[in-house]
Amino acid sequence: MKAARIYAEKDVRVEDVEVKEVGAKDVKVEVAWTGICGSDLHAYSHFVGIPTEEHPISKRQAPLTLGHEFSGTVTEVGSSVTSFKPGDRVCIEPNLRCGECKECREGNYHLCRNSNAAFIGLADDGGFAEYCVMEEQYCHQIPDHMTLEQAALVEPTAVTYHGVEMAGVKAGDAVLVTGAGPIGLLTVLSARAAGASKVFVSDVSKERLALAETFGFVKTLNPAEDDVIGTIMEDTNGDGVDVALECAGVQPTFDTCLEAIKRTGTVCVLAIFGKNPEINAFASTIKEANIKFSLAYSNIYDRVINLIASGQIPAEKVVTNKIKLDNIVEEGFDLLLNDKSQSKILVSAK
Amino acid sequence: MKAARIYAEKDVRVEDVEVKEVGAKDVKVEVAWTGICGSDLHAYSHFVGIPTEEHPISKRQAPLTLGHEFSGTVTEVGSSVTSFKPGDRVCIEPNLRCGECKECREGNYHLCRNSNAAFIGLADDGGFAEYCVMEEQYCHQIPDHMTLEQAALVEPTAVTYHGVEMAGVKAGDAVLVTGAGPIGLLTVLSARAAGASKVFVSDVSKERLALAETFGFVKTLNPAEDDVIGTIMEDTNGDGVDVALECAGVQPTFDTCLEAIKRTGTVCVLAIFGKNPEINAFASTIKEANIKFSLAYSNIYDRVINLIASGQIPAEKVVTNKIKLDNIVEEGFDLLLNDKSQSKILVSAK
Repeated sequence: MKAARIYAEKDVRVEDVEVKEVGAKDVKVEVAWTGICGSDLHAYSHFVGIPTEEHPISKRQAPLTLGHEFSGTVTEVGSSVTSFKPGDRVCIEPNLRCGECKECREGNYHLCRNSNAAFIGLADDGGFAEYCVMEEQYCHQIPDHMTLEQAALVEPTAVTYHGVEMAGVKAGDAVLVTGAGPIGLLTVLSARAAGASKVFVSDVSKERLALAETFGFVKTLNPAEDDVIGTIMEDTNGDGVDVALECAGVQPTFDTCLEAIKRTGTVCVLAIFGKNPEINAFASTIKEANIKFSLAYSNIYDRVINLIASGQIPAEKVVTNKIKLDNIVEEGFDLLLNDKSQSKILVSAK
Repeated sequence: MKAARIYAEKDVRVEDVEVKEVGAKDVKVEVAWTGICGSDLHAYSHFVGIPTEEHPISKRQAPLTLGHEFSGTVTEVGSSVTSFKPGDRVCIEPNLRCGECKECREGNYHLCRNSNAAFIGLADDGGFAEYCVMEEQYCHQIPDHMTLEQAALVEPTAVTYHGVEMAGVKAGDAVLVTGAGPIGLLTVLSARAAGASKVFVSDVSKERLALAETFGFVKTLNPAEDDVIGTIMEDTNGDGVDVALECAGVQPTFDTCLEAIKRTGTVCVLAIFGKNPEINAFASTIKEANIKFSLAYSNIYDRVINLIASGQIPAEKVVTNKIKLDNIVEEGFDLLLNDKSQSKILVSAK
């Protein structure tokens, strides 16, 4: 079958590979759609997140097939699989887990100490391929009225909904999201689904803010032109927002989050920082700020599936392009690195 | 009466002043004991925290009588005071509040936006004096079996117990406290009172650690000699502590706190940082770290009084000296700045 495999920095090859054999606990999925994630771009640009020695859970190392945001249809199941049968439509929850460490046993499998934040599609073969074979525990059924495009968006939406839940966003809240890339935009939608009344989003890209405008309920702020903190304070009676969700990962946006929150407010960091931020400790103390770091998701996939299927999170709005697997490097990775008007790109091998 | 008033940096004068007139809502307290706090030392050394223009709540500015950790006996009450009568023994909850802003109305009077973290004894005349006159809302009755020395320790203990509550310390937890100054030591005692089973405390001062040893239940760690993280990991089955309470306020201890906590663990910052710390964002994400900043206290004074009076928090163990008001500069401020074997010093005008 065809698969997009990463060998090294800037070296992703669409090539013909053998499909993995289906073990007793495995499910074989014919991939429908796979989204390109920021971590795919990091892997492509800097070869980070890809094991160069055998990973303790997947037992694999580079070259590996990328792609961890995907959906598809079951075509074959192993002898001990009981939850799935051929024809079932599924989306994949790709965070690798050992099932045995303290974190796994306590339900925090996203923090599995043997996985160390590894994913199918980074540390094991993923969804930029015609087929993917994985243990059934990584698959979730989707309802009939959910499209396979929507199902491919469950993974990034789960990242954002987990952050929204970690931050404790509740109905009626005022929320700031810094960064309007795909994760920022899905965070905006997740915060709304959790009940946020006022949602501000900031970004320096006009194209990205324009996409946020189409949601209909967002106040967009461009720090190059607008007084972000002044506007937020004016719109919240001088209180500040209840929660700021940091989806940009740079010092200025981190500072903005801390400035924007009310006393006792929460900053939840979903972004990966390239450089460690400094924290204004005195301002944080005076506010009794809470700063939380959010990683992936656990135990929320079925709810996120419901939220997307019901239309409460119209995740499909962030899709700006659909491309063929053959063209993933030029029309996918390279385009996303250069064109900020692109948000989520879905890939199909068909 | 005699009072220790601050005029400028390194300029505290014990001098004769008029006692303030007792207003309708006021209580006049004959001061018994007043503790010297780190913020008194900051005020003395750098003249910080003292209003040089009229404070919006106290309507006062320098020179002002220092001292915010104090106890005493009521000698006179204003015409509308109903909760106190002459002879009542009290301790003072000194955080100034307007009673009208959103924070005050929601019970977060320690975050009062008109006070901006101002205290009796810093932004209004305080307890390094023979008498102090203040509104009755700042006074709390103490039980008969509590000494006035213990009562003077309620304020710093409330700071630490609030931090312990903010951090969510619960019975059976493993806890690290970085810094074994008076606040660090009281945090150790507060964490124990909240049920912590394993309590580690780190400091570079052997004298301070020796005082912590006298508590009987603490594992002391000196980063100059011990492998702090290695020891903690070994003693917690490789998990790390549930909560780290940062009472030192420098980059190395902040880093230690983040390294020491388990996945999903909490770092609660009680210290005031001289320089903003950098935060290891990737490590925080991998752990889903929670970082909380704690300021003062609210709504917990009566419980802290009970905890000290019952012996659950033997706060008196941190007292290393008792001195006379006349000698507060030499035997109090200067000694504390130079001698790390000193912890809490209580002052009396008698």
